[in-house]
Amino acid sequence: MKARVVVTLKKSVLDPQGLAVGRALGSLGFNEVKDVRLGKVIELDLDAKDPAEAKKRVQDMCEKLLANTVIEEYRVEEIR
Amino acid sequence: MKARVVVTLKKSVLDPQGLAVGRALGSLGFNEVKDVRLGKVIELDLDAKDPAEAKKRVQDMCEKLLANTVIEEYRVEEIR
Repeated sequence: MKARVVVTLKKSVLDPQGLAVGRALGSLGFNEVKDVRLGKVIELDLDAKDPAEAKKRVQDMCEKLLANTVIEEYRVEEIR
Repeated sequence: MKARVVVTLKKSVLDPQGLAVGRALGSLGFNEVKDVRLGKVIELDLDAKDPAEAKKRVQDMCEKLLANTVIEEYRVEEIR
């Protein structure tokens, strides 16, 4: 099974990297860009049979290692 | 419109960061993890009406700034 974890800064946390990318895009002529937020994506290849159980395990991984839940939020998605 | 760009290293390129995360997960007891690849996610808030046109513009952003196409590949996804 493959799972994807998307970790982004919480909306209340300032994202200077995103601001910088947004400004760079603007200076390249992409004026339609209103807001940019940067995050991490972690693609996991898992040896698991039960998708529901595997998802719970991945959430556990996020809490323990992959995300800093003080400032970051995460989403777990299954990839087919 | 909101769009999401996922940038990952090409499969042929070694991902030491992913290897390190995979090893760390293993040492935390998550032995079902076979492979980990890390990437970036860029969430864009766009001032665009035509989704098809906007997607083309985002692909242009990737080629020009967001991804290093020598070693990275990208996917553009629309978020509702």
